[in-house]
Amino acid sequence: MFGIHAVEAVLRSDAQRVRRVFVQTDRRDARMNAILELAAAANVPVENCERPRLDRMTHNGRHQGVMVETAPGELGSEKELELRWPTLPQPLLLLALDGVMDPRNLGACLRSADAAGVSVVLLPKSRTAPLSEVARKSASGAAESLFIVLVSNLVRRLEWLKRQGVWVVGAAGDAADSWQAADLKQPTVLVLGGEGKGLRDLTRRTCDQLVSLPMKGAVSSLNVSVATGILLFEAVRQRSG
Amino acid sequence: MFGIHAVEAVLRSDAQRVRRVFVQTDRRDARMNAILELAAAANVPVENCERPRLDRMTHNGRHQGVMVETAPGELGSEKELELRWPTLPQPLLLLALDGVMDPRNLGACLRSADAAGVSVVLLPKSRTAPLSEVARKSASGAAESLFIVLVSNLVRRLEWLKRQGVWVVGAAGDAADSWQAADLKQPTVLVLGGEGKGLRDLTRRTCDQLVSLPMKGAVSSLNVSVATGILLFEAVRQRSG
Repeated sequence: MFGIHAVEAVLRSDAQRVRRVFVQTDRRDARMNAILELAAAANVPVENCERPRLDRMTHNGRHQGVMVETAPGELGSEKELELRWPTLPQPLLLLALDGVMDPRNLGACLRSADAAGVSVVLLPKSRTAPLSEVARKSASGAAESLFIVLVSNLVRRLEWLKRQGVWVVGAAGDAADSWQAADLKQPTVLVLGGEGKGLRDLTRRTCDQLVSLPMKGAVSSLNVSVATGILLFEAVRQRSG
Repeated sequence: MFGIHAVEAVLRSDAQRVRRVFVQTDRRDARMNAILELAAAANVPVENCERPRLDRMTHNGRHQGVMVETAPGELGSEKELELRWPTLPQPLLLLALDGVMDPRNLGACLRSADAAGVSVVLLPKSRTAPLSEVARKSASGAAESLFIVLVSNLVRRLEWLKRQGVWVVGAAGDAADSWQAADLKQPTVLVLGGEGKGLRDLTRRTCDQLVSLPMKGAVSSLNVSVATGILLFEAVRQRSG
């Protein structure tokens, strides 16, 4: 997490999540001093470093001379999502899971999301498996590396994403469009429903496009983590072309 | 399972698996009479039916006036694979799992295989999770609908498949070819290794082509059932185009 505004905000609102602040040696002004004071007040260590190192650590992001390392495995807040929004890598790929209740499935979804380069995973606070040891183990480290946000109201957050220019693609067994028909090169959030139930009605109606995976045999649906993986890697495929 | 030769063979070698024999009303000759005698001797019910019904039930296969219904959920033998080989739908899509030891993963792989229209799943006898209740539940019915063959020697069976004109594509994290680079429109067997270990050396060397899925984040591999689903649906995608 980097940039004057984002770093200041996280130090003010959520300083216990911050492990270290990295500050560019030759950048000292009023706002930077305010950040150093906030860090000192919250007992967060500060490390001076040269600009090239900050460039590397932020993947050449607009860091404005400051970056924080946050505790791994912590869930991000919606506030943090909005703060970090301008710094997320383009073209955006997000994943929203609307009621995945099995921790192993949740873990496998996170693992695939990390592998596919997803920058944010949205989980509805009231309808999601806990990020338990089982889920973290199935995620193989992805629960610690991903930016995972618990949202109070998934539909409202999807509406917000739409306003940011993100295309909302939901998976539904009865959708007319085939999964490969969706243009996933544009900034996209893929939305998958929980085991057995699929998307909730309101979530479904919020999607810009619904897509289905053809079922050629006796079973009527795929495991949710498998369906998630197929859709995510269809996005990877389209973006690599 | 249908055709004079295949039906006669299964009645001779494995009659307890046969539930019913369907015979075309107007087909009676020496070989058909031999089949009726074998059925009677094994106490298998025979049902007469008109040709259009046999056409339908065999999806217009070369049934030669006779078909058997076998017990669901039973594993097929290698002998049966060879007998049924000429009747399998084209273009062939097969799946081989080289050491998937977790029953939930095995079940999810079978579920995806059924959904993708796989006609045969090969499992090595000595290195596979048992088709337990857990596996069957995860498979959502696919364990009963699929033709699953336990093979004594996977490499030898893959060599046999090659001689039948099947392209052997293995998944390996370090493969240079991307998964979308493989031509999966031709008759293909997809080969995936077990959790954590990947393909065994000898299996790997038997493959015509190795493909990898790109890992864009912190994790080094996908869950095996997710990787299986992605590869299977890449075949479905290519074949639908």
